[in-house]
Amino acid sequence: MLEKISGPDDVKKLPSEKLPELARELRERIIGVTSKNGGHVGPNLGVVELTIALHRVFSTPRDSIVFDVSHQCYAHKLLTGRNGEAFDALRKTGGVSGFCSRRESPHDAFGCGHAGTALSAALGIAAARDLSGGDGHVVAVVGDAAITNGATLEALNNIAAHTKRLIVVLNDNEWSIDRNVGAVAEYLNKLIMTPVYNEATRGMRKFFEKIPGGAHLIRAGSAWKQEKKNVLSLGSSPLFENFKLRYLGPADGHDLGALISYLEFAKKADRPILLHVRTTKGKGLPAAIANPEKFHGCAPFDPATGELRLAKKNAPAWQECFGKTLVKLARADEKIVGITAAMPSGTSLNLLKQALPKQYFDVGIAEGHAVIFAAGLASKGFKPCVAIYSSFMQRAADMVMHDVCLQNLPVVFCLDRAGLSPQDGATHHGLYDMAMLRALPNLVIMQPKDEDELADMMATAFALGAPALIRYPRGEAAGVPVKDVPATLPVGRAEVLDAGTDDGEVCIWALGGAAMPVAKTLAARLARERGGRAPTLVNARFCKPIDAELLAEQAKRARLFVTVENHALAGGFGSAVLETLSDAGIGVPVVRIGWPDVFVGHASNAADLRERHGLSDEAIAARVLGALARQAR
Amino acid sequence: MLEKISGPDDVKKLPSEKLPELARELRERIIGVTSKNGGHVGPNLGVVELTIALHRVFSTPRDSIVFDVSHQCYAHKLLTGRNGEAFDALRKTGGVSGFCSRRESPHDAFGCGHAGTALSAALGIAAARDLSGGDGHVVAVVGDAAITNGATLEALNNIAAHTKRLIVVLNDNEWSIDRNVGAVAEYLNKLIMTPVYNEATRGMRKFFEKIPGGAHLIRAGSAWKQEKKNVLSLGSSPLFENFKLRYLGPADGHDLGALISYLEFAKKADRPILLHVRTTKGKGLPAAIANPEKFHGCAPFDPATGELRLAKKNAPAWQECFGKTLVKLARADEKIVGITAAMPSGTSLNLLKQALPKQYFDVGIAEGHAVIFAAGLASKGFKPCVAIYSSFMQRAADMVMHDVCLQNLPVVFCLDRAGLSPQDGATHHGLYDMAMLRALPNLVIMQPKDEDELADMMATAFALGAPALIRYPRGEAAGVPVKDVPATLPVGRAEVLDAGTDDGEVCIWALGGAAMPVAKTLAARLARERGGRAPTLVNARFCKPIDAELLAEQAKRARLFVTVENHALAGGFGSAVLETLSDAGIGVPVVRIGWPDVFVGHASNAADLRERHGLSDEAIAARVLGALARQAR
Repeated sequence: MLEKISGPDDVKKLPSEKLPELARELRERIIGVTSKNGGHVGPNLGVVELTIALHRVFSTPRDSIVFDVSHQCYAHKLLTGRNGEAFDALRKTGGVSGFCSRRESPHDAFGCGHAGTALSAALGIAAARDLSGGDGHVVAVVGDAAITNGATLEALNNIAAHTKRLIVVLNDNEWSIDRNVGAVAEYLNKLIMTPVYNEATRGMRKFFEKIPGGAHLIRAGSAWKQEKKNVLSLGSSPLFENFKLRYLGPADGHDLGALISYLEFAKKADRPILLHVRTTKGKGLPAAIANPEKFHGCAPFDPATGELRLAKKNAPAWQECFGKTLVKLARADEKIVGITAAMPSGTSLNLLKQALPKQYFDVGIAEGHAVIFAAGLASKGFKPCVAIYSSFMQRAADMVMHDVCLQNLPVVFCLDRAGLSPQDGATHHGLYDMAMLRALPNLVIMQPKDEDELADMMATAFALGAPALIRYPRGEAAGVPVKDVPATLPVGRAEVLDAGTDDGEVCIWALGGAAMPVAKTLAARLARERGGRAPTLVNARFCKPIDAELLAEQAKRARLFVTVENHALAGGFGSAVLETLSDAGIGVPVVRIGWPDVFVGHASNAADLRERHGLSDEAIAARVLGALARQAR
Repeated sequence: MLEKISGPDDVKKLPSEKLPELARELRERIIGVTSKNGGHVGPNLGVVELTIALHRVFSTPRDSIVFDVSHQCYAHKLLTGRNGEAFDALRKTGGVSGFCSRRESPHDAFGCGHAGTALSAALGIAAARDLSGGDGHVVAVVGDAAITNGATLEALNNIAAHTKRLIVVLNDNEWSIDRNVGAVAEYLNKLIMTPVYNEATRGMRKFFEKIPGGAHLIRAGSAWKQEKKNVLSLGSSPLFENFKLRYLGPADGHDLGALISYLEFAKKADRPILLHVRTTKGKGLPAAIANPEKFHGCAPFDPATGELRLAKKNAPAWQECFGKTLVKLARADEKIVGITAAMPSGTSLNLLKQALPKQYFDVGIAEGHAVIFAAGLASKGFKPCVAIYSSFMQRAADMVMHDVCLQNLPVVFCLDRAGLSPQDGATHHGLYDMAMLRALPNLVIMQPKDEDELADMMATAFALGAPALIRYPRGEAAGVPVKDVPATLPVGRAEVLDAGTDDGEVCIWALGGAAMPVAKTLAARLARERGGRAPTLVNARFCKPIDAELLAEQAKRARLFVTVENHALAGGFGSAVLETLSDAGIGVPVVRIGWPDVFVGHASNAADLRERHGLSDEAIAARVLGALARQAR
């Protein structure tokens, strides 16, 4: 059946009784592809019925559906003409992206990969409709984790003031990537336990009574608790009513009839609606239901057993090394605490949670709060470590400046996924952190060449008594042994890895673990091309303060500097080198290797992306050799 | 009496009946100094009694009081040993800052100048206390405008999970800088109109009954509406109770007895408290009460008449030129809409509000939402202009990347206060915007030399169909006439203002209105010092894309480039010039003039700050002449 669906119109043509079969086929397809490609298994299996109901009731692209985070868009993609080879290659080079993207389809009203943006975007779309006199419907689908993000709450405060017609579907599955935290999560649970029938539901009751056979659907209570089907519960929520949204639900998110009825009602409402839908993350895949955290986003797996098909590991992941070192340091110093914004497993801060739960805080998807909270702790003598992915850290740029650096408080930022997240793509690459934060006074920025140096940098950061940021990439670390007791590094000093044999003619400065192999390959190539004359290879360690002394010393003899970083070129590490050389009045040419000024998309792996953007080993060597040749002239 | 108070202990020693007199003296002092120096008159006059009550009940620095934004800290400063000459010079060179600062006093628990951070910081301080086994009290004082900021809402969601003892004082005066907007503002109003006495207030009633004469203080209702004194109202708030905060109030914020009773109760509570205090912005100064917006932060004024003592204007303010041009452009194109985050007067977007109210949106202090909302509008064919101060734009760095640039949506960012806000200081200077945003693909970044060019750049930006950012400083524009119809500028092209007479030996590239006079002074000086040989003077216009062609062309003959910008040196405009020259393989020396890598504090004026940081005309000339001399060798 799924194969015959080329767009939402075909979904609407199906007889109602066929819809459960469509749901089954969608789940099969999602499991089939994600078990091979990996991906966001749990979130997508959870919203299959909801997505069918949405496309049954609404008509994209005339109506707009905005998915928050949009890692739950697979069924939506399959129903809007993106099945076939494109979906076979989900998240791979040439395939569809794992997120919504305006470039990919007119059915994707708004692109997204970060949490908490859907309500604001949907409200903007609704305001545009209201101003233009249009009549399209606007639906935001937001998870119960993203609802407590600051942007979502800011939007909630604005909805009623700026439109009368907006439907917010709250997809409540109790999980972000990990289990949700905070007052709102508890509130939603309570709402489900004790739904309240109130006066305000009379209109709704009347509406449903008019639906053929609708009268028996209505009851005031929780539908799924008793595992009953086709039952509508007429609850109420003071919280959302305070934000002037009409509350509908809670609804069983796997009951197609109920979902369609609720959405039909919401469609006709003359005020903003919040429809509370309760779903089961991973529905249809027992292993995913049993392990929601593991199957939130995962590697390929065996659909029968749920066993992950992990590629053979050559070394532990960077974040794992981070997590282990943090536990070690925090055991020795009770002032060290760890803070995550809903990413305990992604950052490996769960190791701290297990080992030293009192020194661990999960604040939910609230990056801004995480940083200010850390600053508060630091102001009273604690040494907080804030572990947030590079691309999500962008959300707290102001807090890093205003609350941490300006007060020179000893908060340590550990930025995972600094560099590429190839299969996730543009929203998840961490290519801008140094550019955004390098101008902030007092901040020390470093990146380790291997996991032992990561431990050293963490020890250095905690000893600093001032703000520090350590960035490291996604994926495997270098595979070197980690010392029992980490060393404290001299701040602002680089390390010469190889003094070279070319009298200092070419100096390669590489920053961090992902740049280092590239730099080594380049160094070997340069040696080969120049009759064995090997360049100097420097492990930069610090982007800020940069080792100006060593740069100046090497510049006396150098004919060419090469910088290698896993970051955007504009304003990054290479730019810091240029500034330093310029300020010292040194005119040595510099070839900067890094990511160009375009958004980098998704691909099967980093090699494909490097190839696509002129950063293959071959292309890099050609650039550097070209620059050398120009120097020789 | 005030003169004898050297710290909070002295406040506690005063007999109760003397406190109203202390309040009068504080108001006199605040009016006396702000009428000479300017400052945040309204917010400070509103919290005089609240501040006395706080220092009567709590003991800083053992207890922590965290003021949100902290522009309401004057009475706090006066009561914590900062009266005298330091306060005479409030916001001036050598005087106390207009905001809280950990460096200034141990009584300032946390520094602040941006809205919405107090709850998160206070929660961090409370968590530190809980972990250390301390017993200090932690109080966050937050305005009703900042309460709807995303960071505050994220903190609200976390408070109950992370501590049992935290007091949030909600200072509700209906105003941010302008009148508050959104559902929560309406909610708070309703709370005041119809306070509800409920079961949960029994414990409180009992507590108050034990206070000598306390029984008659209690009533369930609104205290100030009837203008009664010493009355406690025992209301309730589902909204805050949903966040698991015990609601107290609403309280008359000018009734010392009531405030002290409430705070004493809150001090003994075993769960987090929200005390809702109702204050009158500008209390004690009739002119300020009549014009809360004008007296939020203002220039020196005549305390008798309330007339502002404005310095003679040589030209209209930059933001006024922006506002007028926006109205002109929006009249001609109904797709142009303006969005402000609670700054209609500060940004001059109030001109749009008056002229074309349908094309105007105020979203409250919600910078992140403002940007995503704009992206939503842009996705449906609108041309939104987001007007936010440079330093507050930092809060939406991720949204500029993720929601606007990544989707290449035509949102126009107009950044007021790009450069210095001398009297406000470090939290308000706009010195990092280009560094933070320059690495983002698709974004065009420009800064005009005068108000006519500002209009041209706005027209250019709206015609672009892609993201654009225009930055301009605080203060007066150049005073040139503005054309009736703005021109569209060629993107990425600089303008040669003066071709010079030194055969292109020295080329000065200046970005924007504040840099231009500095560059001109430098050019004149260079001409004088070099026997009339004047350098080339370029109006850069675009930081991104930068005019690489003109740079390369000039580099053929140049011996020295000088860049002048009103921005931090790290990652700014000069850095973009270095990158461009380096990428083109050009080795011309560059002297970069901009702000060094330290936080710039407050001062009476820009000249003092320039002097302090080595950016006086004299110091700049010396640096450039030195570089030229080195070149000659």
